[in-house]
Amino acid sequence: MSITLDPWGHMAIEDYERLLVEFGIKPVRELLAQYNLDHKYFTRGVIFGHRDLDLWLNSYLSGKKVAVLTGFMPSGDPHLGTAMVYEELKYFQEKGVFVKIAIADAEAYAVRREDRSMVVNRGLDFIAHAIAWGIDPEKAGFYYQTNMDSSYYRLIQMFSRKITEAEMKAIYGDLSPAKIISALTQAADILHLQLDEYGGYKYILVPVGVDQDPHLRLTRDLADRFENELGLTRPASIYHKLLRGLDGNKMSKSRPEFAIHLTDPVEIAEKKLMNALTGGRATAEEQRRLGGEPLKCTIFELYTYHLARDEKELREIYEDCVSGRILCGQCKRRAAEKLKSLLVEHQKRYREIKSNVEKYVKKPSF
Amino acid sequence: MSITLDPWGHMAIEDYERLLVEFGIKPVRELLAQYNLDHKYFTRGVIFGHRDLDLWLNSYLSGKKVAVLTGFMPSGDPHLGTAMVYEELKYFQEKGVFVKIAIADAEAYAVRREDRSMVVNRGLDFIAHAIAWGIDPEKAGFYYQTNMDSSYYRLIQMFSRKITEAEMKAIYGDLSPAKIISALTQAADILHLQLDEYGGYKYILVPVGVDQDPHLRLTRDLADRFENELGLTRPASIYHKLLRGLDGNKMSKSRPEFAIHLTDPVEIAEKKLMNALTGGRATAEEQRRLGGEPLKCTIFELYTYHLARDEKELREIYEDCVSGRILCGQCKRRAAEKLKSLLVEHQKRYREIKSNVEKYVKKPSF
Repeated sequence: MSITLDPWGHMAIEDYERLLVEFGIKPVRELLAQYNLDHKYFTRGVIFGHRDLDLWLNSYLSGKKVAVLTGFMPSGDPHLGTAMVYEELKYFQEKGVFVKIAIADAEAYAVRREDRSMVVNRGLDFIAHAIAWGIDPEKAGFYYQTNMDSSYYRLIQMFSRKITEAEMKAIYGDLSPAKIISALTQAADILHLQLDEYGGYKYILVPVGVDQDPHLRLTRDLADRFENELGLTRPASIYHKLLRGLDGNKMSKSRPEFAIHLTDPVEIAEKKLMNALTGGRATAEEQRRLGGEPLKCTIFELYTYHLARDEKELREIYEDCVSGRILCGQCKRRAAEKLKSLLVEHQKRYREIKSNVEKYVKKPSF
Repeated sequence: MSITLDPWGHMAIEDYERLLVEFGIKPVRELLAQYNLDHKYFTRGVIFGHRDLDLWLNSYLSGKKVAVLTGFMPSGDPHLGTAMVYEELKYFQEKGVFVKIAIADAEAYAVRREDRSMVVNRGLDFIAHAIAWGIDPEKAGFYYQTNMDSSYYRLIQMFSRKITEAEMKAIYGDLSPAKIISALTQAADILHLQLDEYGGYKYILVPVGVDQDPHLRLTRDLADRFENELGLTRPASIYHKLLRGLDGNKMSKSRPEFAIHLTDPVEIAEKKLMNALTGGRATAEEQRRLGGEPLKCTIFELYTYHLARDEKELREIYEDCVSGRILCGQCKRRAAEKLKSLLVEHQKRYREIKSNVEKYVKKPSF
């Protein structure tokens, strides 16, 4: 059985290693030492794969105009999975890289069929949370897909010439007019920064969840086909694992009780966490004897992706678990404490920025 | 056999009356007297059909904000068929109606696969010829599809939500990403004037060749579907017969010798005209006896669409022909004289306006 990557949001990924083989995504671990990739997502294997990250890093290191771009789908509320992307953007921004964030309001409206004004307001929210997470808005760009300039849209129209429906079906499976336009719009998101009008950043890195790789494959093909005509170059990309829901399944808007949202009241978030699926054994006795299974545990995932301060702490948590020294209840309470301080601090910054966020992005007129 | 209307430019139409039945286009003749539609295209049956013209005229007569919009495909050179649309726009502009002209450069590039810079330059040319034909540029709007503002593009993205691929296939036959985007772009051309950002002209009339009716049907469906959400209303449309090539077949870019272009040197145009297919008989004797067949004659078509000053003159030409009083050579020479003065005068105005035309339209940056 081959793995299907579904960027429209209905996918679960069981086996990240297989993606490396099937889609030609390269393992990122080979680059860690050479390029001093010191973020915890690199060292912990959360960002596990890439395309052309080495080429992008070479451009960065040699002082060329590089940028990082990603997009957020403004449907549902930002959660700890969303925050993984914020975290990555923050990392690159701190390295001095220009960061641009697209609000995928066109796709949310046309493909996900969300209410338009809700989508626009949610977009502001995703930006406010990004800033609250630590992205410096003065050094970043934010925009709505439906609120760009003509050069960006011209790309979408031009791209349509050099792609067939059969090619798009091979990448996306079922198509619709909305999906076709959304896919080409995402390609414009990724590639528009290369135009002089938008800064001429020829080397673009896109950090995304691995479910978004189909968009990258389309975009790389389009970049190749417009290399001569528009001087476009292939974007690089890095892929992080998807944060699972607290029941161990793919996180889903339809099951909000299994996702921790950045706006969850602290006591709600703690309660969700206390109910989460762990790698614990059937009985306390058994767990003391055999140890827990952290790699099956959604709490250990939270430690890995967000809660463990450093590698030493993460290793201790792991060893406490597999040795049977700690039981799930106690481990959860420790995680809940950390989550609480993370959320309290984040929500404080979020409340400060929320009323100001329109300063940083132009809201669509309808 | 049913008639297929092909807006992508490969159609010949044999039987206009059948269109009235098959596609629900209404005959325009019923409205002539009531609304005093006095342009020769109405009285001569060149504009033969409409959708909702009566509703549009009622809005016009009651002082509501009405506009006329049409688009030109900037591939090939403007010819006497193009000039039919200029003529219609001029008529409505003289009645005080705001006229807007779209240059379909996105479609020319993506669907017709023309060279981009040629398309952009041709666009200027189509506008210069429109002005030379008598359209007052100070009271008209001109734009390129790839050079609009975000509200216009937002329409395209939003439209994609409420149309399925099956519906588009039913209207257009074969599809491609380029055709899908072009079709929705044409819908945005027609409907964007209704937005407050673009003047809030709620009552739009689209004068087109009847081959463009599929776009109108799509656009009317979309207007219905966005009536509540965006307050859009159905556009009205009028349909003119297509000027045939001088060989009696559909005019085609691949047979320029059978089309009279507005830039043709006068002697070339005259030569083309002298070689044209007529409704003449096999011999002069036969023609004197039986009379010619003006309704088969491309020269009589030119008289009808462009060269005959008034109804009296047109009737005389018709009667001279059917009575056998005049033979084709003599009739052609008379037409050539008229064509010559039309072209000389038009080309003089065209040369005057050509270098100034960029004053009236923003050229795309690439």
